Amino acid sequence: MNLTILGCYAATPRTFTNPTSQVLEIRNRLFLIDCGEGTQVQLRKNKIKFSKINQVFISHLHGDHFFGLIGLISTFALLNRTTDLHVYGPKGIKEIINLQLRLSNSWTKYGLFFHELESKESEVIFEDDKVIVKTIPLNHRVYTNGFLFQEKIRERKLNLDAVQNYEIDKCYYQNIKNGKDITLDDGRIIENHKLTFDPVPPLSYAFCSDTAYDESIIPYIKEVDVLYHESTFLDSEEALAGKTMHSTAKEAATIALKAKVKQLVLGHYSTRYENIELFKEQAETIFPNILLADDGKSFEF
Amino acid sequence: MNLTILGCYAATPRTFTNPTSQVLEIRNRLFLIDCGEGTQVQLRKNKIKFSKINQVFISHLHGDHFFGLIGLISTFALLNRTTDLHVYGPKGIKEIINLQLRLSNSWTKYGLFFHELESKESEVIFEDDKVIVKTIPLNHRVYTNGFLFQEKIRERKLNLDAVQNYEIDKCYYQNIKNGKDITLDDGRIIENHKLTFDPVPPLSYAFCSDTAYDESIIPYIKEVDVLYHESTFLDSEEALAGKTMHSTAKEAATIALKAKVKQLVLGHYSTRYENIELFKEQAETIFPNILLADDGKSFEF
Repeated sequence: MNLTILGCYAATPRTFTNPTSQVLEIRNRLFLIDCGEGTQVQLRKNKIKFSKINQVFISHLHGDHFFGLIGLISTFALLNRTTDLHVYGPKGIKEIINLQLRLSNSWTKYGLFFHELESKESEVIFEDDKVIVKTIPLNHRVYTNGFLFQEKIRERKLNLDAVQNYEIDKCYYQNIKNGKDITLDDGRIIENHKLTFDPVPPLSYAFCSDTAYDESIIPYIKEVDVLYHESTFLDSEEALAGKTMHSTAKEAATIALKAKVKQLVLGHYSTRYENIELFKEQAETIFPNILLADDGKSFEF
Repeated sequence: MNLTILGCYAATPRTFTNPTSQVLEIRNRLFLIDCGEGTQVQLRKNKIKFSKINQVFISHLHGDHFFGLIGLISTFALLNRTTDLHVYGPKGIKEIINLQLRLSNSWTKYGLFFHELESKESEVIFEDDKVIVKTIPLNHRVYTNGFLFQEKIRERKLNLDAVQNYEIDKCYYQNIKNGKDITLDDGRIIENHKLTFDPVPPLSYAFCSDTAYDESIIPYIKEVDVLYHESTFLDSEEALAGKTMHSTAKEAATIALKAKVKQLVLGHYSTRYENIELFKEQAETIFPNILLADDGKSFEF
């Protein structure tokens, strides 16, 4: 699982910082999460192939999370993309994009599918054979979802010594990896656990931005491998965090602690702070495993 | 008159090139012309004060000319701007911006005024005591206007030796600069031309992008000091220029020649070309005074 941060600063794009966007890669699938202004340039800078992006998830309709989407969609069209693109985001996103395409008289030749979200309950919004994506209802000034990306349980690992020992034909290997027992020619039944090892545990990633401190998200993110939780403010701005429905670094760490996640990644820093290391310092007083997102940074989990 | 090119490349923003946007400064007024994605960052990079921008002119609703406008408007709001902002652009621009502001539940505290354009005739769209702005109907795939910025005739320059010679009181200086004759205490009438020099001739700037080669714009841009004319293509792509309703460098130069402008600035280069010097080379075969726009370049006229 690889996470590339294209932008992780709040509010306005600046010369050297970008609004929220990130690319999550799980099992060779790329998911684009949020799409602030300039995302297409950040994708280029980080050498992420446009053609590998087939799903875009938009958390909410504040500009720093979606103003780059229309540009990305238009650029895909100009580059003669033919593959379908699926956009998952709050109700209204379709109208915003289609209005601009209509007025610029420039429709996409590729299939552009909108999956508009309205539910205040968690729901499955994407699923294929390897990954499942669920919404995490967040608590912000407008309708907002986080996203939980869960790798599906992988197939069991073949114990090569064991299958060769029993002289099992290769054509049964896939069944064995799928967890099935095997009946030998002499009638003996060999239980699956004797022929396989446990699979690599599936990974999970939860993206939670933007949100006030809200313990009601804990059941959805319980024990995830990696939690990205916004930390717009430091402790000194705790009151402002409450008022604007954002979180402090310590609040993000408290959620991570209570949800027993393995790793917390902080981001969505207010541009008022010169030194983002302070976010780590403050969060570490509560939860030990802290990583700081920064534009252009990649994490391998 | 100062022209700062924020972006002058066609179609898609890339790592080191930006879509169309430029800032024209005449007589201490700043005019933002077009606003492709990333314009607000380009403004920051070029150290142009946001607070000095009160008028934005949008030529047409292709993304590379306006996708940055919603971000700029939002950033102005986040920075607690209070001064009115006026946007001049094709009908539809208001709906695009207001829809996004409405869905993000983030209205501007400053006055945001849209002046939507529909006319196919040239019209005056802005005027104050120093500058007048008129549309130039262009010929492109969607409804498009160029913009002609004309400095008003300045006041006459005082001939200090002459006024002191006649012992004229300072309180009459403004009247003299405004072109009035003066009656001395002894009844003599001194004609204005004896007390003043001709003023600096007013400057004019015409922005023409995007457009097919079209001689019908010549009357509007006749003898302007500076013409910015798009040159998306080189000669080898002349047919493509015709098909997409863009111009070649030579076509831009032909318009400049026929309109007898003083200076031609080329821009809106297709990103297919590695070396923009070729645009200058080709245009110079037709018209001598060629400047190449490039992102971050400033011209003083």
